[in-house]
Amino acid sequence: MNQHLFDRAIALDTLAPGRCAGRTDPAWANMVGPFGGVTAATALQAILLHPDRLGEPVALTVNFCAALADGAFEVEAQAVRTNRSTQHWAVSIEQAGETVLTATALTATRRETWGAQEVRAPQVLSPAGLGRPQLPAAVEWVKRYDMRFAEGPIPRVWDGEGENSRTVLWVRDEPPRALDFTSLTALCDVFYPRVWRRRATRVPAGTVSMTVYFHAGSAELAAVGDGWLIGQAESSALRNGYFDQRAHLWSQAGVLLATTHQVVYYKE
Amino acid sequence: MNQHLFDRAIALDTLAPGRCAGRTDPAWANMVGPFGGVTAATALQAILLHPDRLGEPVALTVNFCAALADGAFEVEAQAVRTNRSTQHWAVSIEQAGETVLTATALTATRRETWGAQEVRAPQVLSPAGLGRPQLPAAVEWVKRYDMRFAEGPIPRVWDGEGENSRTVLWVRDEPPRALDFTSLTALCDVFYPRVWRRRATRVPAGTVSMTVYFHAGSAELAAVGDGWLIGQAESSALRNGYFDQRAHLWSQAGVLLATTHQVVYYKE
Repeated sequence: MNQHLFDRAIALDTLAPGRCAGRTDPAWANMVGPFGGVTAATALQAILLHPDRLGEPVALTVNFCAALADGAFEVEAQAVRTNRSTQHWAVSIEQAGETVLTATALTATRRETWGAQEVRAPQVLSPAGLGRPQLPAAVEWVKRYDMRFAEGPIPRVWDGEGENSRTVLWVRDEPPRALDFTSLTALCDVFYPRVWRRRATRVPAGTVSMTVYFHAGSAELAAVGDGWLIGQAESSALRNGYFDQRAHLWSQAGVLLATTHQVVYYKE
Repeated sequence: MNQHLFDRAIALDTLAPGRCAGRTDPAWANMVGPFGGVTAATALQAILLHPDRLGEPVALTVNFCAALADGAFEVEAQAVRTNRSTQHWAVSIEQAGETVLTATALTATRRETWGAQEVRAPQVLSPAGLGRPQLPAAVEWVKRYDMRFAEGPIPRVWDGEGENSRTVLWVRDEPPRALDFTSLTALCDVFYPRVWRRRATRVPAGTVSMTVYFHAGSAELAAVGDGWLIGQAESSALRNGYFDQRAHLWSQAGVLLATTHQVVYYKE
């Protein structure tokens, strides 16, 4: 059986407990370096592979310190504090002795409690009803996802007349792959830069920090299987070179799987 | 002139570049250990004091690995990557040789660009019109803030019949203090646990990770002075022991100063 391209991209060789080797994958190339979602997923993967890991991911923050160069990198994952049911992690990725990514994460054993979901998935046409965008993918990694835009597709005309910063889309891996914490992490980063949407102007932009909160455990992710997710992303403010993006990702059944935030550099 | 209690709480003695000593302050006591907002502000303060710092805070993520014990602690702040206009930081707080907090941050020199604010401050009664809550402060740190609730005050009756997770409030330091990055960081954490609001049930809860994105520079914060901020906080989902909180903080003039997110542990 062929390995899925996502699994190939996040594959790590363990050099020692907490120290792994990986390499960037041309199938996931972005304009400069690889798609940040896959890099974030790789940082999480180093934690998931760690023999001392306690529980499942609850929170992950990834800081993109520099663009990864194409080629080899090393990931270091360290449990800095282990409590009874929670564990705090520090992760870094290095290339040629330089730090290119830092991350922190919380893993925990979760138990059943009272619960409530406060935000509902937007009501939009089905993926089949919306169809694939006609626009060719501008970068390689976009071909690794099937995205169906219900609102706020990438502008076709860059006329400086965007109306707002919102995008609503269906998304899944292409070809489909059973959802897990790593692929969900990457899916949190599929939204193109909000400044392009808001301005209808294509300016250089790149994520500098991204946080994911996981609202579902592995059993709930397994229940989603390779089904569609629906995502909504928008910005609160774009000012003096940085904007934020907040996004929600639900299963097709309407279960909120992740909330995610990022701060993004933009030019001009 | 007397030192403001907030400045006393975040005061650090530099032991070496990037290594500082501090101590918890009884004026900021929470149920267990100090108010997390002040601890987060202290982590940022260690960066602000660092002689090699480049630019101003753009993003900060703080992970509360364990409750701080009352007493002394050491803060270590390290610039892990310095680029032309951005700098990435790793911070940790230790007590008795154990890590109690980890943080990462981005500082940057910002320049004027095109901008847009996508979210407006809620329209509510003035702080004077709302008045102070009649409820006595349950913990010491609450007395350090003047909070006027426009929506979603702490429930007076714990009857299990909360309607939603939203709180809207005016807030400022008590006594007033000119706003800066450290006090804004602490203000991001003033919202009582969303699970109390949503459930109208008082269960044990504690923040485990918190992220702040700063949308304003020091000049814009100085322009706010010691004026009121308006904040809105709500949860997306509460499930199996953890909920998220997203919040916005605006100046009284309606300028979005910060967006903030946290993931919070709760019991039962």
